[in-house]
Amino acid sequence: MKNVLIINGPNLNLLGEREPGIYGSDTYESVCREAVIKAKELGFSDCECFQSNHEGGIIDKIHAARLDKCGIIINAGALTHYSYALRDAIAAVKIPVIEVHISNVHTREEFRHHSVISPVCRGVICGFGKYSYTLGLQALADMLG
Amino acid sequence: MKNVLIINGPNLNLLGEREPGIYGSDTYESVCREAVIKAKELGFSDCECFQSNHEGGIIDKIHAARLDKCGIIINAGALTHYSYALRDAIAAVKIPVIEVHISNVHTREEFRHHSVISPVCRGVICGFGKYSYTLGLQALADMLG
Amino acid sequence: MKNVLIINGPNLNLLGEREPGIYGSDTYESVCREAVIKAKELGFSDCECFQSNHEGGIIDKIHAARLDKCGIIINAGALTHYSYALRDAIAAVKIPVIEVHISNVHTREEFRHHSVISPVCRGVICGFGKYSYTLGLQALADMLG
Amino acid sequence: MKNVLIINGPNLNLLGEREPGIYGSDTYESVCREAVIKAKELGFSDCECFQSNHEGGIIDKIHAARLDKCGIIINAGALTHYSYALRDAIAAVKIPVIEVHISNVHTREEFRHHSVISPVCRGVICGFGKYSYTLGLQALADMLG
Amino acid sequence: MKNVLIINGPNLNLLGEREPGIYGSDTYESVCREAVIKAKELGFSDCECFQSNHEGGIIDKIHAARLDKCGIIINAGALTHYSYALRDAIAAVKIPVIEVHISNVHTREEFRHHSVISPVCRGVICGFGKYSYTLGLQALADMLG
Amino acid sequence: MKNVLIINGPNLNLLGEREPGIYGSDTYESVCREAVIKAKELGFSDCECFQSNHEGGIIDKIHAARLDKCGIIINAGALTHYSYALRDAIAAVKIPVIEVHISNVHTREEFRHHSVISPVCRGVICGFGKYSYTLGLQALADMLG
Amino acid sequence: MKNVLIINGPNLNLLGEREPGIYGSDTYESVCREAVIKAKELGFSDCECFQSNHEGGIIDKIHAARLDKCGIIINAGALTHYSYALRDAIAAVKIPVIEVHISNVHTREEFRHHSVISPVCRGVICGFGKYSYTLGLQALADMLG
Amino acid sequence: MKNVLIINGPNLNLLGEREPGIYGSDTYESVCREAVIKAKELGFSDCECFQSNHEGGIIDKIHAARLDKCGIIINAGALTHYSYALRDAIAAVKIPVIEVHISNVHTREEFRHHSVISPVCRGVICGFGKYSYTLGLQALADMLG
Amino acid sequence: MKNVLIINGPNLNLLGEREPGIYGSDTYESVCREAVIKAKELGFSDCECFQSNHEGGIIDKIHAARLDKCGIIINAGALTHYSYALRDAIAAVKIPVIEVHISNVHTREEFRHHSVISPVCRGVICGFGKYSYTLGLQALADMLG
Amino acid sequence: MKNVLIINGPNLNLLGEREPGIYGSDTYESVCREAVIKAKELGFSDCECFQSNHEGGIIDKIHAARLDKCGIIINAGALTHYSYALRDAIAAVKIPVIEVHISNVHTREEFRHHSVISPVCRGVICGFGKYSYTLGLQALADMLG
Amino acid sequence: MKNVLIINGPNLNLLGEREPGIYGSDTYESVCREAVIKAKELGFSDCECFQSNHEGGIIDKIHAARLDKCGIIINAGALTHYSYALRDAIAAVKIPVIEVHISNVHTREEFRHHSVISPVCRGVICGFGKYSYTLGLQALADMLG
Amino acid sequence: MKNVLIINGPNLNLLGEREPGIYGSDTYESVCREAVIKAKELGFSDCECFQSNHEGGIIDKIHAARLDKCGIIINAGALTHYSYALRDAIAAVKIPVIEVHISNVHTREEFRHHSVISPVCRGVICGFGKYSYTLGLQALADMLG
Repeated sequence: MKNVLIINGPNLNLLGEREPGIYGSDTYESVCREAVIKAKELGFSDCECFQSNHEGGIIDKIHAARLDKCGIIINAGALTHYSYALRDAIAAVKIPVIEVHISNVHTREEFRHHSVISPVCRGVICGFGKYSYTLGLQALADMLG
Repeated sequence: MKNVLIINGPNLNLLGEREPGIYGSDTYESVCREAVIKAKELGFSDCECFQSNHEGGIIDKIHAARLDKCGIIINAGALTHYSYALRDAIAAVKIPVIEVHISNVHTREEFRHHSVISPVCRGVICGFGKYSYTLGLQALADMLG
Repeated sequence: MKNVLIINGPNLNLLGEREPGIYGSDTYESVCREAVIKAKELGFSDCECFQSNHEGGIIDKIHAARLDKCGIIINAGALTHYSYALRDAIAAVKIPVIEVHISNVHTREEFRHHSVISPVCRGVICGFGKYSYTLGLQALADMLG
Repeated sequence: MKNVLIINGPNLNLLGEREPGIYGSDTYESVCREAVIKAKELGFSDCECFQSNHEGGIIDKIHAARLDKCGIIINAGALTHYSYALRDAIAAVKIPVIEVHISNVHTREEFRHHSVISPVCRGVICGFGKYSYTLGLQALADMLG
Repeated sequence: MKNVLIINGPNLNLLGEREPGIYGSDTYESVCREAVIKAKELGFSDCECFQSNHEGGIIDKIHAARLDKCGIIINAGALTHYSYALRDAIAAVKIPVIEVHISNVHTREEFRHHSVISPVCRGVICGFGKYSYTLGLQALADMLG
Repeated sequence: MKNVLIINGPNLNLLGEREPGIYGSDTYESVCREAVIKAKELGFSDCECFQSNHEGGIIDKIHAARLDKCGIIINAGALTHYSYALRDAIAAVKIPVIEVHISNVHTREEFRHHSVISPVCRGVICGFGKYSYTLGLQALADMLG
Repeated sequence: MKNVLIINGPNLNLLGEREPGIYGSDTYESVCREAVIKAKELGFSDCECFQSNHEGGIIDKIHAARLDKCGIIINAGALTHYSYALRDAIAAVKIPVIEVHISNVHTREEFRHHSVISPVCRGVICGFGKYSYTLGLQALADMLG
Repeated sequence: MKNVLIINGPNLNLLGEREPGIYGSDTYESVCREAVIKAKELGFSDCECFQSNHEGGIIDKIHAARLDKCGIIINAGALTHYSYALRDAIAAVKIPVIEVHISNVHTREEFRHHSVISPVCRGVICGFGKYSYTLGLQALADMLG
Repeated sequence: MKNVLIINGPNLNLLGEREPGIYGSDTYESVCREAVIKAKELGFSDCECFQSNHEGGIIDKIHAARLDKCGIIINAGALTHYSYALRDAIAAVKIPVIEVHISNVHTREEFRHHSVISPVCRGVICGFGKYSYTLGLQALADMLG
Repeated sequence: MKNVLIINGPNLNLLGEREPGIYGSDTYESVCREAVIKAKELGFSDCECFQSNHEGGIIDKIHAARLDKCGIIINAGALTHYSYALRDAIAAVKIPVIEVHISNVHTREEFRHHSVISPVCRGVICGFGKYSYTLGLQALADMLG
Repeated sequence: MKNVLIINGPNLNLLGEREPGIYGSDTYESVCREAVIKAKELGFSDCECFQSNHEGGIIDKIHAARLDKCGIIINAGALTHYSYALRDAIAAVKIPVIEVHISNVHTREEFRHHSVISPVCRGVICGFGKYSYTLGLQALADMLG
Repeated sequence: MKNVLIINGPNLNLLGEREPGIYGSDTYESVCREAVIKAKELGFSDCECFQSNHEGGIIDKIHAARLDKCGIIINAGALTHYSYALRDAIAAVKIPVIEVHISNVHTREEFRHHSVISPVCRGVICGFGKYSYTLGLQALADMLG
């Protein structure tokens, strides 16, 4: 059974409305919808999309995922840059976690150039808009063989 | 309709009891009460006071405010210094947000000299005790004309 | 007797003409005029406006003010960022000094994010255009009770 | 009445399962059990163990503890390294708080070498595995005389 | 006509032989072969693979590509970390360039955490072994629609 | 045979007289006396107390201890912050070494926040006054089982 | 009408006498004389030379120049390295300002390597002795066409 | 015999096409043509223009120039910021070398503010577009008398 | 003829009134009076005391002193920490200059620990209150033999 | 009884022989002799000169001095820059300690610009050769009144 | 078969002519000649000397050497300080590489104090002029037994 | 007469026993023995080996060596990284001093990458195990001709 979990962190619920010049005009719902379709195509049995503005809620979710998911695609939003607690949660579970970002964070503010979770993720994909999620699913499928 | 929201972040519920040498002896309740009176004087139709020790809860509140408030006065407490998620939430809403602090943060520990939310707020007011809130309301009123 | 002094530092004489995208189109004269009116409303007996491009001249003025003013509102311009001599002058007088800035300095160049005078001022107000001065007067009035 | 509170922060619920090479194979439950026994031996009337992955929840708990506990032993997990809100909560309560860590954080990643809560705790104990908790209780007992 | 160019920088000719614990045991030739097959599947008319240990040679190649390629996938090897000349070459051409890395550079030496070319690339993919190249091709195809 | 060695570094001979506001009024002799009593209670066969203001003398002592002690409790005084030679001495011996400090060094000058010996000690205890030594002995006893 | 202004900052009045190993033996007067001749050759209607050791005086002069000069050549002396007030003055006027230095500042003390006015000047010329001024005039003439 | 060499480093062959907003619309060829004409006017017997994207090629060229040129004008492109090998080459030859840049590098990205070759060049000219080259020739002529 | 000049920089005119906890209760006038007496005792023919809050005025004074003084004792106040123009003025004159401070600047704010003029002064004396001036005169007398 | 102690740290025994360009040609013995004479003139009952290359020996000496000396003049040599143990020794004794240096340390290597003992000394004197010691004695006499 | 390769990087072809005060007056040819003689004495079957100003050329040479050399002595010139590509090349081959420098790089400019290749070389020798090469050969012979 | 001195600093007496994975299994005695033999082969009349854990003792030894040794080979152990007093001792004697290390310090902890004595030694040799000493002797012999 290959269930995959897609986690979106703080403020990503506002996708489509929030700073469209940076994040594009696709809504959170449409991005999820396309990801779920892609996951099916790639042979995943299920693809759950989870969003929260609460660091603690995301950590709880990652802990739970270690029991019934084969991997996680995570766009941690701004938690990427300071949440060492999130980092520890990712390091604590054994399933592969892939970090994705919608925008190319390296073209933006200085503080977005550093990710505290990259060293405990398997790989990083950024800058491809909604395709960052589908590429993350593809990468997970490649990795799981 | 001009509703204003006043947000107080972590530990500000203990105002009056917590380190009175720094924060003064006014309680959280009395500060709110005075702010509400001032808001009325300035012609705001409503002034809601919200306090939470949860970063995620504050972000949720800011998101909601974008639909029915004309502006936000925020004292983010110590989140001021590291919560990039809060910063993104402020940047994501279009209503004006004004950052306030009770104490003059520049006379205190080094870490309090840097605010990660200032660059996405319209202005900053600090050091005037409970008046920081009423000055913030005045500033919002000035700004909204 | 409550006389208040408003000090404007280097280049603020060019207000209205200088980089209006940042500083707005109000002239130095009109900003002074509005501040004087506000000071009257707040019950100050007199409000003197002083501008100089000379660090030494501003220090001399602050020294003199300790004898016959009840407080100072200062927009030190770029001296804000390096004039430790100005800082010492503010620390040397016992009357309250309030730091104001027209623009939100935290959205601008890195060097403008640090003020060497903030630690010796009572409070800081920035980002509200000409209202930064009137809010400063209000803050002083609140403080003096 | 001497009630003591032991707080465990993010990811410590996974003790025993999470990176056992670093944190050892004792489970969260067994660590709590031993601590409770030790607290009894030391004469504490009660020892409550609390774990949460939510920064806000931990702050709420510390606030509540100021009313009916004589002291707190806290392993803040990764919040240790960035949660200034947690720091403010500890500084806001008057009961003694002792910081503990299971591993010797100084032998690990650079970011773990700095604790933002140490300056507001009474003392720090790290590197002794499950004994860090019992030593913390001993230290609290010594301190309370 | 959609020709794509894959550029591999210094030392990548030794893939399969060089530090296999980090880079895997696939040879440069086999990685190229799989990439060419994937490019065909994705509808690219041609996929050229180019490797050089010479910074100047890679810059010349990028300049030439602006005339007859629709995009570039580049693994710049260690040039990633200091070749501002390479950065300028990427910025000088108008076709999209995607940065890829075989290993997760964020788990390795400090100097590998910073890329001087990321800010001028469209996106970045790292950590997926040979799949980093095929994911890069997929990303380019997604981008070109 | 379980002999333990307690080492006190520079200036600790002046305990009780030296800056009592920071170090308390217990003398070096009384602290030693209590530690020796505690060591006996914990079942150590002998507890030797050694103090020196000479870095070289402390290194010689550590070298000698590797032959007939089961562990070392060390308060290295200010050597803690720069003596890499002391660090190497600790790393060179195989018996466990526990670092202790009387005061909470994290509340004091910046230079006291960094210890060059922590990474080669088993654990660190600071801030508990004379109890730091007895807690160190307890920790060693726990560790040795 | 094409009037040009040459400003020399602090200590440049001592040219020829001051550290001739660095600044050469031409006096301030002879440097001015040659610059005026060159300005005439280049078709400027007038060339005024101004020197002051007073930051405020230089700022006043720049403000005045915006009304009747076509450009400014400035050697700000040591103000180059810290006078943000001077920087703001240059940014406040619309006429082109060219920064010149007699010596190659990059071969001297570290603090001379950074200029706070370069980002608001049109261009920078340094290291050519008295010719730095005539090259500055040539550059201004080129620029004004 | 006064032969002069003009060296252009990486990516400058694309002048006119590459980022015209920064580098202007003059082509590499036209810039060379104007420089050669100016060199003739200034009395140089010959002016050779050399461009390469290869660091090693530029170093070889500088070595050769020490035998038959009287000076070098160099725009090292992005090599300016990291090529210590280029710096050593300049320091190794005895003929004067003048550093030029088309744009005012101090108004651009942080990394462009530092030149590793400035300390071994005679002088630096930047920000005057194609005139930076002709001013460099003028400076060399002035210097050679 | 041995005339000596004592320069006091910004805010030192307020000695005795300004922060007496740091600077003592001697007034500027009494400090001058004692210095003049001491200078006489040491055999100086004249001792002039000069105070200004203007950097430019102090530089002008130093320039003039090179013609008729045998040495300068300078307490530059806060200019000590940033006035490179003052530094250049001291370096430009050939007479010995001795830097003095009333308080021990190393026990105060971080910014006061660094003096930009020390490297061009002959020696530095700080921390001895009004005696810093008389010790400076003694040092000058020793030096001049 | 006013006994004074002069301490010279590492390598100062070689005065006169060691780097005379920096330290002058007076020998350690002659410097001591002159200091003793000066101490007598100033009314000190005794002046002991002590030199050691051993940090520990100097600390022991300072400890002993607290019992029978009225003050210490210390030239700690290179220990000045890193011996926090020496700093603690000075802070531990109640008698005044004055830091002196023969050369002006601010004109020398970067590491000599920072003294770890200055913050616990009463004052600092540097740059006056052998007179630094006699000025130190004078300062002590002034201080003791 | 024990063939050894000696690589000299950028600008070392000018040895003897280039800055002889630093690099001595031996020419590149004579240094090679002596190294070849020494290699013979030490029993190496062949000693090839290679010099290039091209980073890529040196990398190609190192790659080739892995097939038929028993070790490399490299003086990478200024590439030492930034060429991570060279570092990767050294790490990619299994034969021992020894880093040598003619001058003592630690007495020179700051940038020469850091080598990016030292961590992947077996050892480093610097400061012995032409003998650095022969000592490198000796070290290689010792190492190979 | 050519006597040579080999100095080994703190903890090197434990060679062979101490961290053999890093320092090898040769004992201090055997390393000395081999060095003495090599010194004889190289024509030195005597080779004294000295080891101490005391910084002061090593400085005393260096001072004494200036009278009857022709050179020093020093492995300063961890003093390498902070003992400026040792640095001054080396600078104070005129005989050549060569710095050696057993391990390649650049592959180890960050603090071992910086040596405070390198700038005053003639050359540095590291990474060759016991051969570092014999290479040091060879280098000294080469140097002395």
